[in-house]
Amino acid sequence: MTVDAKVPVSGQSGKDPDKTAEIYRAAIRIFREKGYHATSINEIADAVHLTKAGLYYYIKGKQDLLYRIMDNAMNAIEQIVVAEADEERDPVQRLRKVIAGHCSLITKEGNGALAILVNELEGLPEAQRIEIESRQKAYVHFVREILDELRAAGKLRPLDSTAGAFGLLGMVLWTSRWFEPQGRLSSEEVTAQVAEMALGAVLRSG
Amino acid sequence: MTVDAKVPVSGQSGKDPDKTAEIYRAAIRIFREKGYHATSINEIADAVHLTKAGLYYYIKGKQDLLYRIMDNAMNAIEQIVVAEADEERDPVQRLRKVIAGHCSLITKEGNGALAILVNELEGLPEAQRIEIESRQKAYVHFVREILDELRAAGKLRPLDSTAGAFGLLGMVLWTSRWFEPQGRLSSEEVTAQVAEMALGAVLRSG
Repeated sequence: MTVDAKVPVSGQSGKDPDKTAEIYRAAIRIFREKGYHATSINEIADAVHLTKAGLYYYIKGKQDLLYRIMDNAMNAIEQIVVAEADEERDPVQRLRKVIAGHCSLITKEGNGALAILVNELEGLPEAQRIEIESRQKAYVHFVREILDELRAAGKLRPLDSTAGAFGLLGMVLWTSRWFEPQGRLSSEEVTAQVAEMALGAVLRSG
Repeated sequence: MTVDAKVPVSGQSGKDPDKTAEIYRAAIRIFREKGYHATSINEIADAVHLTKAGLYYYIKGKQDLLYRIMDNAMNAIEQIVVAEADEERDPVQRLRKVIAGHCSLITKEGNGALAILVNELEGLPEAQRIEIESRQKAYVHFVREILDELRAAGKLRPLDSTAGAFGLLGMVLWTSRWFEPQGRLSSEEVTAQVAEMALGAVLRSG
């Protein structure tokens, strides 16, 4: 269940989708290593064995590439994490699914796009930054509503929904910084542990 | 309790400490807004009403400034957060103090240095990056040891200490992204809520 595999890459009609996916993966890796601003379009072209002109057949430029990576990452959040969590009627199970789904997406190998999404927003032109931010806000709102529902059911600790939602998301998003695909803990183990902590953080005990 | 107020600014003997603090504050603000790489030394000089030459009286360069900001932020973690938590013998109270102390440091107005610390490490020269990273690792180890102690006392959920420590730190560190000094929730409220969630995340219920 990777971003590239399940979410259609947008705006690529007529172009080799494998090459496009390879470009995205290379750009994600280099953006993460060096930061968006410090990355040149030449480095991305070199990494995928294209000339600069060849690369421009697939993308309009570095900013366009950044936007597409973020757009795909938000698609994955919306079409996988939110969509699957939304199938659960019980708010406890819905919360577990959204946390585990998001954590799984981040920790699956090759999904550095989710890290780019939260760290490089200021690299986008204003209109696209506003679009991505509004989708991120809708996602935070989705988590906040689950907490509101838990409160109504008497299951929430005495927490503000906003602080609660950002507290949980911080825990999930931070996995993109410390999780090592070849490390001691598997993606599944980290996902299970983060979900356990997340529910414990917000649910009343006993 | 701000970084500037309690932790001595290092390596500034003979120079106006107020001006030095002003330079740090301006650099922190601009680094956070634009990112370290996209910030020019001229912008920092302009922000503090100095010529570039005047600025170089206080700092050796942009990288030196980045290192000093991170060094001061780590000093605050070590000399305030860890030192105060270390006074507590009970591991539950020690955990509460380290989470609340760190969260308070981040959410107090003007402490954007803690955000720089986690986002701009790759801007440092290698030797300094390694130094800061090893101090960060020692801090993570401090949190992990509290979790080990809680496990020994039968108070920890079935959690891996590393996943637990990073889960908690993610929750705390993320406050630097969403907390608004002029917003609805005060620094004290957010600190109390994050501490409540952190203990709930790792302690066995009941």
